[in-house]
Parts: sequence; C-alpha cells; structure tokens
Amino acid sequence: MSDTLADQVLAGQRRAIARLITRIENEHPQAQTILSQLYPHTGRAHLIGVTGAPGTGKSTLVNELAKAFRRQERTVAILAIDPTSPFSGGAILGDRIRMQALAGDPGVFIRSMASRGSLGGLARATNDAIKVLDAADFEVILIETVGAGQGEVEIARTAQTIIVVEAPGLGDDIQAIKAGILEIADIFVVNKADRRGTDKTVASLTAMLELGQAPTRRVLHHGILMAVEAPLADDEIPRWEIPVIKTMALKGEGVEQVVEAITGHRQHLTETGELAARERARLAEELENRLQATLMKRLLARIPPDYLPEVVTKLVDRRIAPYNAVQMILEEYAP
Amino acid sequence: MSDTLADQVLAGQRRAIARLITRIENEHPQAQTILSQLYPHTGRAHLIGVTGAPGTGKSTLVNELAKAFRRQERTVAILAIDPTSPFSGGAILGDRIRMQALAGDPGVFIRSMASRGSLGGLARATNDAIKVLDAADFEVILIETVGAGQGEVEIARTAQTIIVVEAPGLGDDIQAIKAGILEIADIFVVNKADRRGTDKTVASLTAMLELGQAPTRRVLHHGILMAVEAPLADDEIPRWEIPVIKTMALKGEGVEQVVEAITGHRQHLTETGELAARERARLAEELENRLQATLMKRLLARIPPDYLPEVVTKLVDRRIAPYNAVQMILEEYAP
Repeated sequence: MSDTLADQVLAGQRRAIARLITRIENEHPQAQTILSQLYPHTGRAHLIGVTGAPGTGKSTLVNELAKAFRRQERTVAILAIDPTSPFSGGAILGDRIRMQALAGDPGVFIRSMASRGSLGGLARATNDAIKVLDAADFEVILIETVGAGQGEVEIARTAQTIIVVEAPGLGDDIQAIKAGILEIADIFVVNKADRRGTDKTVASLTAMLELGQAPTRRVLHHGILMAVEAPLADDEIPRWEIPVIKTMALKGEGVEQVVEAITGHRQHLTETGELAARERARLAEELENRLQATLMKRLLARIPPDYLPEVVTKLVDRRIAPYNAVQMILEEYAP
Repeated sequence: MSDTLADQVLAGQRRAIARLITRIENEHPQAQTILSQLYPHTGRAHLIGVTGAPGTGKSTLVNELAKAFRRQERTVAILAIDPTSPFSGGAILGDRIRMQALAGDPGVFIRSMASRGSLGGLARATNDAIKVLDAADFEVILIETVGAGQGEVEIARTAQTIIVVEAPGLGDDIQAIKAGILEIADIFVVNKADRRGTDKTVASLTAMLELGQAPTRRVLHHGILMAVEAPLADDEIPRWEIPVIKTMALKGEGVEQVVEAITGHRQHLTETGELAARERARLAEELENRLQATLMKRLLARIPPDYLPEVVTKLVDRRIAPYNAVQMILEEYAP
C-alpha cells in the first residue's frame, strides 16, 4: 500500500502527490516511511525561494516565472507557504485563482500550505513537500512565502536561489532591512516598476549592495549542527553579483531577465561548489529540527497526562522556577 | 557571589540588572541559578507588548507611554526586541536616542535585545529578561518588537496586554492580516493620525472587529503542553471590547487614552480571571520551550563531534533519509 503511493509519486501522478502532501500536513504515520522511499530520488530540482512584503506582487511574479519556465519546457511546482497565520490556520486565497491561470497544464503543480501549529512544524512539512515534488521530477520548485518576517526568512532559506521582491512606495527599504531579508537575497526584483519611486528603490538597493555586498550567506547557518563544521574562508568564495531587476509582472515585463538571473545563479552555485555547501547546510538544519521534535515527542509520551499541568500550577504559584522544573522533569522521565 | 547579584537586582540596582541580562544573552552558566532565586519575586509587573509594522512610529509611542506611566509615578522598563535580524545580530539603533529622551530618570530602564541565533533562543532570553525586570520591581514592562512577522507575534504573545500599532498609508491592513497580528490585539492604535487615510484605517479596523470579534486569544496557545488542558467554553468568557485609538505620538496626542485603555484592559483581565489564564499559558509555553532546548543540548553533548557531520554527508549522498537518520542517532545515543 505505501509502496504503491511512493511509486505513483515517482511516476508523477498528481493525485498521489497531493495525497502524500496532505498526509505530511496531517503527520500521518505512514508519511515518513514513504518519504524515506522517495528520498534517494531527490536532490535534482532547483529550489527557488520568493519572498518579500505583502503588496509587492509576489504571487503574480511567481505565476509569470512558472509560465516562463514552461516555455523552456521545464516542469514547475509552486509551493505557497503562509507561516504568519498560526492562529487561524486559514486557507490561502490564491490557489483557486492561480489554478485558472495555469490550469490544465500537466507540467505545473500548485499547492499551498499554512501553519497549523508551530513554525518548526511548518518548516518540516515544507521540507517534506519539497522532497515529494523533487522525487516526482519537477525540475523547478518555486517556494513562495507570504510575508517578510523571521518565519519567511526561515522558510526561504531552504531554497537554493532566493529572490527578494520589493515594490516602490511601500516603505519597503526599511521593511526589508528590518526583516533581515536583504542578507539572504541572491536576486532582487523591483516589481510594479511602472510606479513612481521605482528608480529610487532600485538606487537604494544598488547603493546598499555596493556598500555591503559580501558573500555572507555562505556561512549564514545558525543551526547547532552546522556550527561544528568549519566554513570556507571568505576570500575562497567567488562572488555572485546580486542583480537588481525591474519587472511589471502583471504585463510579463522583465520576467525573462529574472529567469536568466535564476539560471545564471544556479550555474554560479554549481561551478563554485556553493550548491553543495547550501545543500549540506539545509540538510544539517533539517536533521537538527527533526531530532529536536522527536526528542520532545518521546519525552511527552513518557509523562503521565496529569503531571505537566501540575508542574505548570507550581510555576504559576512561584513554588518552582522554570529552570528547576525542567531539571526535575528530566530527572524523573528522561534520566 | 551569585547571591549578591540576585540581591542587587531585587534592590533595583541598575548595573546589576544590566549585567544579569547580559549574562542571560550570553547563556552564562550562573544566569539560571540567579533567575531561580529571583523567580519567587516575579509575577507582579504588567507586561505590555507593542507590535506593528516598521514605520508606524511604535518606538515613539512606547517612549510616550513610558512618560505617561512615569507621570502616574509607576516605574517602567522598556525591552526592545529585534527577532528579525538573525544574520547580522546587529544592534538596535534606537537605544542611544531613547536614553536621551528618558535619561536620568531612575524609574525608567531601557534595554534592547537582538537575536544572535534562533528565534527560540531569543524568546527564552526575552522571557528571562522580563523576569529580571519584574523581580527588580518595575511595575510596567513595555515589550516592543521591531517588525510584524511570526517572530514578533511569538514574542508579543508573552505579554498580558498587546497593542498593535498601525499607521495610515502603509498598506497596513493587508500587512496586519497577513502577519496574523490582528488576532492578538487587545488594543489598536492608529498612529500618525494627522496623515491622510487615518479615518479609512480606523474604519477598516473597526469593521473588521465588528465582523470577527471573538475572544479568540483565550484558547490561542499552540504549544504542545497547553493542548492537554481544557480551555473554558467561549461563552463563559466576558468579552473585551477592543478599542481603536488615534494617536499622534510625536506630539503626545492620544497617549493618555492609550494608557487608560491599558489600565482598563488590565482590570478586565484581573476581574475575569483571564490574567491567570494567560499567565498559565505563558508559563506552559516557556516550560515546553526550555524542555526542548535542554533535551537537544543533552543529546548533542553525548554525540562525538565527528559523528553528526558524517551523518549529514550520508544525507547529502542520499545514502540515508532524514527520518531514518534521526532513528539511527537516537537509537545509538538516546535509547
């Protein structure tokens, strides 16, 4: 049964892909077994992250990029991730509209995922969904995040090429700086380039890049595991000149240049060995994330259901401090 | 030695407070022992979270709120948190400017904290810094976050009263919806209310509240531990009418109304038992966060330094899948 689903995914069957992603979202017990079977078939897709503040026209750009890749006869999957609605767990609007624009094309697969619980859970589910799409032989996977906060940065970092989208007149420069997304950009797109203020936005991005450009992202893993490994010295890394590209995605203008930049970046990553380094960092973080989640799950399974609420009561009453509570729980249930 | 620092903090000595917060940031081994000594003296301060998109004038509002509370002769601490710069770990600009505005007042303490690693680490450090300020007898603690993404939502949720700041003409409605911060607001402030579009922003917030207002936040903990506990039924919870207040913080206008709303909200929380419920949820999440971090630390301490990089190499080569790698590591080092 589980063999069959893996085979169907490998054969690129859309319903099987959709079903497996749903199982991943629901943390279905079989999902991880199937993913383990798919894993040897992954690692070929180009993972492209697209992030930026709401209102920049990201979704339109992503759709146009998908169409452009299709014109090159490459298969495309779009994953739209919303890490910023932890409370509502609501659905993402775009899906149905998008389905229409790219409908009926068997070379395109579109799926949105929203956070139902923790950011960590969403990151894991996103990683797993990427594996499914990769194994199903989609050559390009566009990972679009909804906002521009820490959550989006975390998600975007799983990609190999990261596009940061800005639009004139959104107070976007400040926003991007504050959200720490400038540091992760491989390509800047200034969308809605028919608006007033476009040249100012382009100029300020360019100025910022000239001031600060350094291959910073190379060592920008902040996981525990990666800290064990020595990064290459900065001067050993050939530099990627981050382009700033103007687009009017609604009219399709500038989109081909973005595709060229993406292709160029992929080539740069491959030639410099950076692709392998990023892949390694990505997998190290995934391993860490999974280890942590599994440890916690195992601990909770050992603790009787009444015990933790009692400890919380003691915390509330200031009869025990959080640090001591942790020591006590671990001594008792995970010695 | 550690006794002394705890005593100094309890006596409200500023240098001791600053030093302990630095130790918390650096994960100094003594920090947790000192915090355990301080813990019985916490739980009295009113924790007020202030969040909203960059450019809304949040910092100015926070400063004006601090001044207003000082006029009531209440002591005030300001914690400015920047969860959105995980890469640069850069300092926050505002500190020095602020120091000038509120300088020399022994009833005010200002501190900024930026993420040096993970969001989880920052959340823990923020929680601990709040404890220090609470034990040092600051009656009001203003927790200001820099952006409006998931990270900020996480941080803001530790507060008892949450103020969401908007400003006209920032495309802010969409931003707030997407960032999921509308759901956590107890008080809305529309700052820069001399700008065009103010009434539109107020109207759209009000309309949204009328449409959707429900005491949702009561059950909005998404931690694992809290899921064990049954929340009150919705109809048992008296409703807090979320106010929408116009301010021009730069001129101090509207600030007194915000202070009144804060005081009213605190009273509502106390009378309805909601304060205790929020405190409980907060502590449960803190416990969970700490358990998880400690489990991971302990596991990593048991694993020889060469082992994990080898596993990552196998992941990269697709010789093992992440799920199986986790099982293998845990069987070997945490059976």
